[in-house]
Amino acid sequence: MTSPTTGRVAHAPRLSPGAPAPSAAGRSPAGAPTEPGTARIAVDLLGGDDAPAVVVDGALRAVRTDPDLHLLLVGPTEVADGLIGALDPEQRSRVTVRPVRTAVGMADHPTAARGESTVRAAVHAVRDGIADALVSAGSTGATVTAAALGLGRWAGVRRPALVATLPAVEGPVVLLDVGGTLEPGPATLARHAVLGAAYAAVAHAVVAPRVGLLSVGVEAGKGDRLRRSADPALAAVPLPCGARYVGLVEGYDVSLGARADVVVTDGFTGNVLLKAIEGAYAMAGGPPASGGAPRAAALLGVAGTVVVCHGAARPDDVASGIALAAHLWRRGATDTVSTLLDDVPHDPAPDRNDTEVAP
Amino acid sequence: MTSPTTGRVAHAPRLSPGAPAPSAAGRSPAGAPTEPGTARIAVDLLGGDDAPAVVVDGALRAVRTDPDLHLLLVGPTEVADGLIGALDPEQRSRVTVRPVRTAVGMADHPTAARGESTVRAAVHAVRDGIADALVSAGSTGATVTAAALGLGRWAGVRRPALVATLPAVEGPVVLLDVGGTLEPGPATLARHAVLGAAYAAVAHAVVAPRVGLLSVGVEAGKGDRLRRSADPALAAVPLPCGARYVGLVEGYDVSLGARADVVVTDGFTGNVLLKAIEGAYAMAGGPPASGGAPRAAALLGVAGTVVVCHGAARPDDVASGIALAAHLWRRGATDTVSTLLDDVPHDPAPDRNDTEVAP
Repeated sequence: MTSPTTGRVAHAPRLSPGAPAPSAAGRSPAGAPTEPGTARIAVDLLGGDDAPAVVVDGALRAVRTDPDLHLLLVGPTEVADGLIGALDPEQRSRVTVRPVRTAVGMADHPTAARGESTVRAAVHAVRDGIADALVSAGSTGATVTAAALGLGRWAGVRRPALVATLPAVEGPVVLLDVGGTLEPGPATLARHAVLGAAYAAVAHAVVAPRVGLLSVGVEAGKGDRLRRSADPALAAVPLPCGARYVGLVEGYDVSLGARADVVVTDGFTGNVLLKAIEGAYAMAGGPPASGGAPRAAALLGVAGTVVVCHGAARPDDVASGIALAAHLWRRGATDTVSTLLDDVPHDPAPDRNDTEVAP
Repeated sequence: MTSPTTGRVAHAPRLSPGAPAPSAAGRSPAGAPTEPGTARIAVDLLGGDDAPAVVVDGALRAVRTDPDLHLLLVGPTEVADGLIGALDPEQRSRVTVRPVRTAVGMADHPTAARGESTVRAAVHAVRDGIADALVSAGSTGATVTAAALGLGRWAGVRRPALVATLPAVEGPVVLLDVGGTLEPGPATLARHAVLGAAYAAVAHAVVAPRVGLLSVGVEAGKGDRLRRSADPALAAVPLPCGARYVGLVEGYDVSLGARADVVVTDGFTGNVLLKAIEGAYAMAGGPPASGGAPRAAALLGVAGTVVVCHGAARPDDVASGIALAAHLWRRGATDTVSTLLDDVPHDPAPDRNDTEVAP
């Protein structure tokens, strides 16, 4: 699991207001220039509400867009063969198949991922060095479980986080958690603040990220018990990459980006918030030109590059999830973020009331 | 506190898809025909981040738009006089003043509302029958505290809820709570489901409202501990007005309205969600034609008609808050909803871990 650019934190200038972030736009990988470097991505063909059709379509788009992309298709042979048959010979040479017939359903308990399944086989491909990263649009809980069991967790992050990057008025906003850990305690939120700051710097080249804690008002003391105890915890934690804690922020800040580059919240709130923003764009007649709410998120806290797509992903969403996985691998993001976290002291005991999606 | 149409539930046909709801649009009262009937609204001149200027401007717009509207301005005499001076003689005859010089600040503890203040004086005006309803853009916690102390609570609702109505693709969506009770337990969420169903029928003429519980997925069992225990509680509670519980819904449903007319959640999540939708509209270049995220919400659970405007309210928001208060009074909404709730059996003991904004 060595990556091409391990250990180096990018320090590009902050994006100018309104400019789309390189990977925040996410949905339309064809619109952004592809980074160089081979990336071998395992794709769970059976994950998602409309799998395999949507996943196949998304994988086709990705492999046609990115000439350095190699795909490992994990799923039934006949599905993979259908996809391969639609490619030209050069593209075909960049696609291999791992035949697996069992999927974890969206209504299945996450522990179903312990058994043989496409998501587990994709995780094992990463673990065994056959793929550099994996993408699944299946059950988030099952992917988190399979990844944590198959790849191991980072020593410094007991509770994984799903990290989404939203295009915002004043540059990209990194929102975490959007569904990895539904009920974190204050210590986990503080750890996720460190993680989000490192991710913003490494994956999106945000200089000296401003980190905020989502609440119902900006004045100190606003919020529920979790927020009132997490606010001093985030204020006290050392942040990497020149990041600083700016205190409480509100719902608008996720789409505006004026007050924070990184917005920290629990996985329940982050998940409903992300989907509410997507719904608002639909209500407004479509997402803004710089991109809508992302339907692909990075899973941080496990020892490998894992991207989770929305269960209702469309082909473009799957393609942008594959592009995100390739981007993170090429930047060495997972390894670099993990290394940055090792340098920040933390309480090794997780909050006792933490509840993950996965048991 | 007798209202003009007490006890009658409106049963107008469901709004056709895409049609703006009579009061869901909220922001532009000038665009909707005014309902007949005198409404005397107490306005807290000193509540809000940009008070009194914004409140004065909003009150001017309201009194010019609605010929049956009477305002009781609660605040410093010189501020009220400036407002009155800008009106013509007929409009002036519909405005009276209650001189109060002290306000509760946005950063003050909600208990500050126990002392003499504009919001407390506005509450007392309603209690004493001098006004029919009150509007404040000041601290939500202070308004909830002042209203609960001054007006009393409904016997059947120990935890008040702030109720916002959002224009959605398929008709208005009633979202509660958006900040009245930050940490409800499952019994309070079930009670709020009853309250939201009654409010949708009475205030917005929604026939047989569909009630959903906000979570991270629609499959049973998705969500954190609160949602997993509230889901069966909502399924078990009898709902008024022909309403039915449709189970778990997701963030999109708040803006789409395809799955539910009433979305129930805790006050923390509802508050950040509402503001996130507002931010998304700003990011998308402006709210949809049928109206953006409302910046005025009804406080239900106290014995009087109370509307809370956003602290960062603009003049149009204040005017739409006044229009909402007049609309609710003219429909007899507060009394009718309260009566409907009395008919639904409930557990009189609130959840022990409930935490309100107000202590």
